[in-house]
Order: sequence, then C-alpha cells, then structure tokens
Amino acid sequence: MSAYPLLCKLASEIALLESTSATLGWEQETYMPPKALEHRAQQIGYLTGKGHALFTAKKFRLLLEKAEGEELGPVACANVREWRRLVNRATKLPQKLVEEFSVASSRAKAAWVEARKRSGFAPFAPHLEKLLQLTLKKAERWGYDAEPYDALLDEFEPGAKAGEIATLFSILRPQLSMLAKEAVARSANVPADALTGEYPVAQQQQLNREVAASIGFDFDAGRIDTTAHPFCTKLGPRDVRLTTRYDPTDFTSSLFGVLHEAGHGLYEQGLPADDYGLPSGTAVSLGIHESQSRLWENHVGRSRAFWERWLPRAKEIFPALHLSLDEFLRVLHRAEFSYIRVEADEATYDLHIILRFTLERRMLNRELKIKDLPAAWNEEFKSLFGFTPPDDARGCLQDIHWPMGALGYFPTYTLGNLNAAQLYQAAQKDGSIKQACERAEYAPLLAWLREHVHAKGSTLSPRELMMAATGEPSDGRWYLDHLRTRFVA
Amino acid sequence: MSAYPLLCKLASEIALLESTSATLGWEQETYMPPKALEHRAQQIGYLTGKGHALFTAKKFRLLLEKAEGEELGPVACANVREWRRLVNRATKLPQKLVEEFSVASSRAKAAWVEARKRSGFAPFAPHLEKLLQLTLKKAERWGYDAEPYDALLDEFEPGAKAGEIATLFSILRPQLSMLAKEAVARSANVPADALTGEYPVAQQQQLNREVAASIGFDFDAGRIDTTAHPFCTKLGPRDVRLTTRYDPTDFTSSLFGVLHEAGHGLYEQGLPADDYGLPSGTAVSLGIHESQSRLWENHVGRSRAFWERWLPRAKEIFPALHLSLDEFLRVLHRAEFSYIRVEADEATYDLHIILRFTLERRMLNRELKIKDLPAAWNEEFKSLFGFTPPDDARGCLQDIHWPMGALGYFPTYTLGNLNAAQLYQAAQKDGSIKQACERAEYAPLLAWLREHVHAKGSTLSPRELMMAATGEPSDGRWYLDHLRTRFVA
Repeated sequence: MSAYPLLCKLASEIALLESTSATLGWEQETYMPPKALEHRAQQIGYLTGKGHALFTAKKFRLLLEKAEGEELGPVACANVREWRRLVNRATKLPQKLVEEFSVASSRAKAAWVEARKRSGFAPFAPHLEKLLQLTLKKAERWGYDAEPYDALLDEFEPGAKAGEIATLFSILRPQLSMLAKEAVARSANVPADALTGEYPVAQQQQLNREVAASIGFDFDAGRIDTTAHPFCTKLGPRDVRLTTRYDPTDFTSSLFGVLHEAGHGLYEQGLPADDYGLPSGTAVSLGIHESQSRLWENHVGRSRAFWERWLPRAKEIFPALHLSLDEFLRVLHRAEFSYIRVEADEATYDLHIILRFTLERRMLNRELKIKDLPAAWNEEFKSLFGFTPPDDARGCLQDIHWPMGALGYFPTYTLGNLNAAQLYQAAQKDGSIKQACERAEYAPLLAWLREHVHAKGSTLSPRELMMAATGEPSDGRWYLDHLRTRFVA
Repeated sequence: MSAYPLLCKLASEIALLESTSATLGWEQETYMPPKALEHRAQQIGYLTGKGHALFTAKKFRLLLEKAEGEELGPVACANVREWRRLVNRATKLPQKLVEEFSVASSRAKAAWVEARKRSGFAPFAPHLEKLLQLTLKKAERWGYDAEPYDALLDEFEPGAKAGEIATLFSILRPQLSMLAKEAVARSANVPADALTGEYPVAQQQQLNREVAASIGFDFDAGRIDTTAHPFCTKLGPRDVRLTTRYDPTDFTSSLFGVLHEAGHGLYEQGLPADDYGLPSGTAVSLGIHESQSRLWENHVGRSRAFWERWLPRAKEIFPALHLSLDEFLRVLHRAEFSYIRVEADEATYDLHIILRFTLERRMLNRELKIKDLPAAWNEEFKSLFGFTPPDDARGCLQDIHWPMGALGYFPTYTLGNLNAAQLYQAAQKDGSIKQACERAEYAPLLAWLREHVHAKGSTLSPRELMMAATGEPSDGRWYLDHLRTRFVA
C-alpha cells in the first residue's frame, strides 16, 4: 500500500482541526461576547494541540519517509517535499524550547504594552534580550548556512536568504528614499482632510461589497465582517472571510481595507479546493500572499481607470463626496512622512520595512546590542526620513512583531510590494488584460493570476513561482517604475 | 487514585469538542456562506465522532465502574448516576443500528419534503414504517418496563413514563378543549391584523435587546442574532446565543421569539459554570427547559404588568404603534384554531400536542397502522378542534419530528407549559416576588428560578426538581388556572 494517500488523509484530518480553530478565531474577533474568551482560548488550544500532535507524530514521519521512496507524480512530489520541510521545522525544536519561547513571548508582550504606555524602552529590554536568545536557539536547531536570519525567514518565505534581501534592499534604499522625498514634497498642497465628510457605515458596506464582487470575490464562498483590525482568514476550501473597520468620516479607509483583504481572499479562493489541506492547496509564502493584496489594493484600487469607473458610483452612494476625479486621485496619492508604519502611504511604506530589516538582522548577528536599539532606530530613521521620532512608542516600540518573537517577518511586506509590481507588469504584457484593466474590468487579470499564482499552491517555491510567472526572480525595478509613474511622473 | 476526577477531566474534553461543534453549528445558521456547507458538515461530523468515541470508549466505562464503587459527595454521586444512564443509552445500540437509523432518517426527511410539496402521504408511508421499526428496535435495546414509548421518552425527559403522561393528558384534554373553544369565541371580534404596521428591524432589535436585558439576560455572556428559525444554543460556560427572526409588519413576532429563547438562555446562563461539561452543570430535560422559555414568554411576557411597563417604551420606539394597553392585550391574548402547531396560540397549542402524543403512542404500540395515520389524524383533529385539515401537508405531514425519527419528543412541549405554570405560581407565593412582578421587575423571580431550577443542573431528576421546587410532581391544574384567568375570566 502506498504511503502517499495515507499522508493525504492525515493532512485532511489536520486541516479539519486547523480550519475549526480558524473558525473559532474568526468568531472571537467578530461576534463573540467578552465573557466567552476563556473557554474559547481553551477550545482553540485543544484543537491546535491535537493538530500539531498529528503532524509531528511518529506515524506521520514514518509515512513521510516511506513516501519519499515512492514514485509519485509532480504534485505529489511537491507535497512530500513541502511536508518534509514543515515536519523538520515542527520537530526539530525540543518541546522545552517551544514552551520556554511561548512563556517568554507572553511576558514580552505584556511588558511591551506597559513600555509603550509609558514610552520607556528600558523595562522591555530584558524581555527582548530573552526572546532574541531563544530565537537564536531556534535558528540553531533549524539550521542555516550563512546566518541565523535565514532559518527564521524560511518560516515566512521558504528559500529566501537574508543576504539576497539585503542586496535587494540596498539597491532600493537610495531610490525609494529619493522618490519618497519628492512624492512628499509634491503632496504639500493636498490637504490631509480633503475627503473628510459624512459616510454612513451602511453605505460604505454597500460600496465595498460591490467593489469586492466586481474584482471577483465570491460572496457565496466568503463574507465581509467588522473587526478592530482588518484581516483575511480561510475557514474551509470554499469559505474565506474578510474583515475591515469603518471610519464614518472617510470611506476610503474601509474600502482600501477591503481591497487589500480581498486580494488575499482572491488568492485563497483561487487555490485548488480539491487539494485543500495539502501543500498544493495552500498559499506558498507571505511575500506571495502580500503581492496579491497589494496588487488589488494599490495597482488596481489606486489607479485612475479604477476610479473612472467607481467614483461616479461612490458619488451616487455618498452625497457628501464632491471631488473631481483628478482631485480625488491627488488625495489617494498623497504622500507624507510618518513615524508609524501602519499609517504609512505607498510612497513611504518600504522605508519603514528597510529600517526594521536592517536592525533585526544586526540584532540576530549580535552586531547590535538590545540596549542600543532605540538609539540605532532613531539614527536609521533620521537617515531614511530626515527627522527623529519623539519617543520610543512612536519609534522602536510601535510594532507587535518583535514582542511576539516574530523576527524575520518584516521583509515579506516589501517582497509583497516588489512581487505585486512584477506580477502586474507581467500580466499587462497581454494586451487584452491591459485593455480590460483600462476599462476597470478585472476578470482577465484575475484569470491570469489564477493560472500563474493561485493554481500553483505550494508546488513551486516563491522564487520558482516568480520565475515561471514573470521570467525572473523578485526584483525591485518594476516597483520603482510603478512608484515613479504614480508619484513623481 | 480516585476515578471521579479523571471522569471529570474526560467530560471536560468531551465538552470542548461538543461546544466547538455547537459553535460551528451556530455559525452555520447565522453567517456561513452557502458554498462552505460541505466542509462545515465534515468538521461537525468529525468533532461529533471524536466526542462520541471518548464517551463510549472502554476507558470511560472502566473509570465509571470504578467511580460507582467510590465514596463521593452528593453532586459527584448525581454525576456518576447520570453518566451511567447516558453511557448506557449511548452504548446499548449496536453501531449497525445507529447507522441504519441515520440512513433511514435522511431518506425519510427527503421523502417527507417531497410528500409535503405534493401533499401526498402514501409515498412517505414506507419511510415512516421503516423508521418506526428501527425506533422499536432501539427501544428494545434500551429496554423498558411498560411500553416502548418509555424508552424513547427517557432521552428527552429522564424518568418520565408514557402512562403517566397519558393520565395527565386525559385530565387536561376535555378542559383544554372547552377552554380553547371559549377563548376562540371570545376573540371573534379582535381583528387578526390589529397590530399590523411598520416596525423597522433595527428598532425591533433595540426593543428586544432592552427587554432581554431587563429580564436578566447577560449580553456580556451572550448575543442575539438572526436566523430562519429562532433557537438558543450554548457555546461555552459563559456563552449563550439566542436567535430570532423579524417580521417588519409585526414587532411582536421577533419579541416573543426573543423572550422564549431568552427563557432558555437564562436557564443556560444560570447553570453552574464551574460544572460546565458535567451533568451537574447541564440542563436536566426538555420539559424543564421548555418551562423556562414558556414562563418568560407567556407568564411574564404576555402579562398586563409587563406591558404596563413596556408598551410606553414600544410606542416611543415605533411611531406606528397606537393601541391602548387594553387593546394591545386583547391582540396578545387573541385565540384562534389553526391547522398548524407552530402557528398556534397559547390557548390552543396543547391540543396539537395531545393529538401527536396519542397517535405516536398508538403507532409505537402497533395499535395504529402507518397507512391509517392520515385518517386517524383527521379524526382526532376533528374531535379536538371541530373541523378537518384540508390536506396532509396541513395535517399529519406538518412536523419534521417524525421524519427525523424523533418519536417521544412532543409531550415535552406540554410538560414545559405545565411546569412553567407550576413553577411560576410557586415563586409567586413569595410576596416580594409577586409584588416585583407586578411592577415588571423580574430580578427576584429570576433569583428564585436560579436557586430552585437553574443551580440544580441535572443533580435532580425532573420529577425530583419539581417536587423540591413546588412540593408536588408536574400537574395540570396550575396551567389550567393560568389559561382560565387569561382567556375566559
């Protein structure tokens, strides 16, 4: 009897457990009453533990070893290869280290919340030091060739290397920096509140729904709900949930939230449903996932063609909206330097990422001491943005990633931006796609992404996927072209 | 090592699985997109199977046997006793019979849907015959002293006997029948559409929420959502979900739905949270559960005192509402004979139940052949209501209970009505409760129910609970008194 189908069956069972956890997690963020929290945490912990136990059990590993000796088709081979990578990652860490990390991360998060409130880095420093030490232990266990960062990155962006990213970023840095400065200067006469008005939530929901449906999001296999922070989660092979939040004085806040999350959602809806629970039915990396959200949010959703179609409709829905198309686009393309990454616009966002990548790589290589992080942050920030954050809350304490112990995550945001631009330009080479996009019709673009990105699941590595779809690995020039055209042309 | 705490631990694990299934089931009815159905069914099936396997495994039974020999406190004793009853019920059926029944019930439901559409009983008859045969096999396996009905009833109303219910019902029948006729005659001049108006859903939700909160429903540990059919479900020790549906032309439809389900919800919120997953933290029977919903819906929610407080508020919320208190109460207490049980009012509802109990008992005793069911239904119906249904869709095919194979369920509705009246009058003996109810303040009434009903969980049988709370077993005279006062006084 072949081991491969038995592995698929186990993987389906794990997927049932994980998708149930995801459903409970979604409900916790959307509808759950507050006193239900403790029991919900118990449920999710129980199901997560069961899924992890199945995946790391001897049974799975023995079957995997057997399957590695079997003659299999290309998709099955890819699944076996990816399972091996994931099983290694899941089993190479001793249970004690996993638990120690989990405790340290909980404590660090609590200390971070306090440190942010009082804006003092010092009491948080020992927690970050502890997390860094444990993270380095994890990296040792997982193994790496060049530097510990690579072992961490592999969780989010399989196959990517910190050295390659550093090269990419060193090319981007001066050009992005120059570009951002010019974009900010050109926006000086666009008032920050040009859009401010009355946009009732029910009407925003109407527009968001129409827009999401028009780019191809299937509402028979998904929903949009309201949460404090927008996200996208998959609850089953035909069940993708988006969330957004509403600012009743600015409809674009919820709308771009929806476009971003719908980009993630279209990827999830486009993965092969029959392979649900297998690597071949699973998104390949954060850098590819983010490319889909950024493509729909920025390349489509902030384009002139898109608003030629949608501004008249938005004006029907919102009587408060009176801007002309040119005025409206100037607001959408307004650039401004800000301390806070999550509030940054398209023109300045990646500078925030480059800063974080540089610093966390230096921390992991033990070139930067934790106690020196605030000073290093402010120095890098000044070199990138030209001014200094007023305090650490608006500086090195602003993100939850490090307190969670998620080192190696940040560069996937910029990889997503590069990939979005590169995939978008590759698709535009097809004249019929380009012409449809100019009419704000996106079915041909979506079909291209379905074929070249979504349908692949994890059968190709992110690098292989970009090669196959665009003819070259991730590169910055398409993104720089895009930013130049949009912001300084 | 004592076996009892190990049983409690296993029961907690089973409760985690079951409450997760319940959460998925709630989400399926409230928010789930249609294409997600198949995966959702797989998730629920998987979790249900895991929970059932844990409960019926040798490990649980061996621990239970050991615990039965241990010296335990009264609550632990009650839990062990109830586990024994439940384990016996769960393990006495051979797997083959369970599967055969599940297949037969699926087929019967499909045939029933068809039969209802075409209003033809004949093609449904063989399915009901098959279900009846399998139901009798189940009853044989479970065992009974007097008649098969008792074995079925025990699932819904532990310890109840069909013979006792028959005696209760034979006393009720002539008096209810007379009472119903008089109530219907007195309502002749109350128009059916006296309340019809415009009641926007958002405003209905506002009133429903205020009313539910005022009777003590804790919205930090629960919610109200919208579904095709109202229900109440518990998702965790501090998480109770109510649902209702909205008729935009009649606000009382959703409001009484909420009052009914909130009655169930108050019971669930009042069960000892620390005993969640144990019999001592679980509702004891359908007849007690329904007593709580009917108490709040009918004894509280249709009382003059309640509307003295709430009609002015309803008029603030709904400008369309213009009836005086007396006019409004006449509409609420309007009685009418109808073919359909679920549309029946308080004065006529139990006649529908008596009809069903009589017929299903005769079927189970093999005194009534399936092919003769429609004729027997119409004959009984005529004797109770004075006229004959025009077709089987409005006759013996109207309910889903028999096609599902849920024989022995119906009498719990009327037991609920009797218990509601009996508990309500017992509570009213306390003058401070009575006075508070007259001011439409229900905290003292709820406190009484918490102490005498909710806090007991399943540590007492339904009969013991009624004895302890009211001094006598379930009896019809309090209910008849209530109906007389309300409808013919």
